[in-house]
Amino acid sequence: MQPDLSSLLTTALRQLDYGQQPATLYDPIRYIMSLGGKRLRPLLTLLGGQLFTDDLAPLVKPALATEVFHNFTLLHDDLMDQAPLRRGQPTVHEKWNPNVAILSGDVMLVRAYELLFENVPLPLLPQVLRRFSQTAAEVCEGQQWDMNFETDTSITIAQYLDMIRLKTAVLLGFALELGAVLAGAAAEDAEHLRQFGTDIGLAFQLRDDLLDVYGDAATFGKRVGGDIISDKKTFLLLTAQAQANGAQQATLARYLGQPLADTDAKVRTVRGIYDELGIRPQTEALINDYFQAALQHLERVAAPAARKQPLHHLALQLMDRES
Amino acid sequence: MQPDLSSLLTTALRQLDYGQQPATLYDPIRYIMSLGGKRLRPLLTLLGGQLFTDDLAPLVKPALATEVFHNFTLLHDDLMDQAPLRRGQPTVHEKWNPNVAILSGDVMLVRAYELLFENVPLPLLPQVLRRFSQTAAEVCEGQQWDMNFETDTSITIAQYLDMIRLKTAVLLGFALELGAVLAGAAAEDAEHLRQFGTDIGLAFQLRDDLLDVYGDAATFGKRVGGDIISDKKTFLLLTAQAQANGAQQATLARYLGQPLADTDAKVRTVRGIYDELGIRPQTEALINDYFQAALQHLERVAAPAARKQPLHHLALQLMDRES
Repeated sequence: MQPDLSSLLTTALRQLDYGQQPATLYDPIRYIMSLGGKRLRPLLTLLGGQLFTDDLAPLVKPALATEVFHNFTLLHDDLMDQAPLRRGQPTVHEKWNPNVAILSGDVMLVRAYELLFENVPLPLLPQVLRRFSQTAAEVCEGQQWDMNFETDTSITIAQYLDMIRLKTAVLLGFALELGAVLAGAAAEDAEHLRQFGTDIGLAFQLRDDLLDVYGDAATFGKRVGGDIISDKKTFLLLTAQAQANGAQQATLARYLGQPLADTDAKVRTVRGIYDELGIRPQTEALINDYFQAALQHLERVAAPAARKQPLHHLALQLMDRES
Repeated sequence: MQPDLSSLLTTALRQLDYGQQPATLYDPIRYIMSLGGKRLRPLLTLLGGQLFTDDLAPLVKPALATEVFHNFTLLHDDLMDQAPLRRGQPTVHEKWNPNVAILSGDVMLVRAYELLFENVPLPLLPQVLRRFSQTAAEVCEGQQWDMNFETDTSITIAQYLDMIRLKTAVLLGFALELGAVLAGAAAEDAEHLRQFGTDIGLAFQLRDDLLDVYGDAATFGKRVGGDIISDKKTFLLLTAQAQANGAQQATLARYLGQPLADTDAKVRTVRGIYDELGIRPQTEALINDYFQAALQHLERVAAPAARKQPLHHLALQLMDRES
């Protein structure tokens, strides 16, 4: 996709020094950072910067702040969700223990700030730190809403969309905005890029919800139907509950919220109701709305069309419309 | 002690806006910040600044960053230590739940950074953020060492002193240094103040260890002997283990590391060995060493003696040599 930029990021990530002693504090940081992933957020920072400058070297370390921050949220979220695996490997709280996960995560948040204030030019620093901190708090708010929703039976679709915006989308928006700001973009262009990233993030998360139900088991990477089995209140379920007739409501109520031996039957039945209500095309329509809104924001950025090509290409890839 | 400065801090603390929604994220922050305490760290920042300037107003909000950070560490430490009470009230993980404690703490760390970069003059910002981040990581290192020590049977006295330096003392040093830097002090003076704070912190923590064994139950506030009952490897115990003869070693081994029904006998027996070995005067001598070293650093700060009086007075108060 962006072989040069990706290898630039990978090399820089490998060279980061998080600290040494005690090893029980710093080994988990090196461990989670080494598990890989797409490095999507720092890539967005570089691609956002590339719209306005050819000299991306000064953007690399600030870009890594978004990756360290993202992995900090994964570390603490995995502990809160009691997830056993992250990218196929034991999570930090499993491999070490919950207290190590708390403390190592805390230090990662400190290191993310360091990557910014040690590498962002002074005149831009207050603005960058303000937007980073706002985004960081919003991501925490999103995670808290997500946890609240587990026991809340009155969630609206609007509340769900706001939750995924905070938990996932705003950080993608910030990563792009950061690249633009560091590359000297006008405030208006940085803002359009932020909204491009946020809308792509919303589209991407909804697509993930959709694939969880309708994805190809061979390529999805997670168990298809997992959200249905765990009663997760996704856009699909909330929309179905809002549109179901009496019989469908009764069926949903029979299958949701209780441990069932036959999870395949649960997935089949709930998906059957989704099919009756046309939940799939409705979700696809909303994904497309966000995707088109994103592209319009990218369109409005005052930069040559040729320079927008990599971001356009990445957006299509994230939507799996091209590969 | 410093009625004007304390009420200045209390008023400013009450006006801080941590955020609103979700309430499950922000109520715990308001809760722990309202539990009180001496507000020692921001007071040190103001007293450090007062050596060099009469205009303390610009120092108040940066000073509060040290208090928000300190309470963030209390929130996460209480969760890690499974402490039921903080200042006589339920801890956040007890009143809400562990996940809320993790996330609320995370946001508090973000808010501490915000209090700095929103209120520290730009030319001083990189230096202040660098020293704050270094201190924040060191406090996490200290907590990790403290947890490691629970299962480590080979801790030296030097390792213990380094642990309490990181966990407790460096933040007091930073609070003072912050005040000096913001008030325009020379680098050398800021450094002497930092060392004054660090040495006072070490003396204060050792005094806490001593009072846990030899304190007056009526005024100590915690159960006297608590460290002995829980086998905590304090300076007193490590020194006793290093100096005990064969019979004393055998007695210590019989009482330590196992649940005992008669905790009073355990406290009495271990304290008896401390008495035989003269652990109390040895600890008092070390406390006095740190205290005198602290005063020498304060002495060397290039500021009028009259301006040093409140810091001198506070140091004596912390050592309970005057009240």
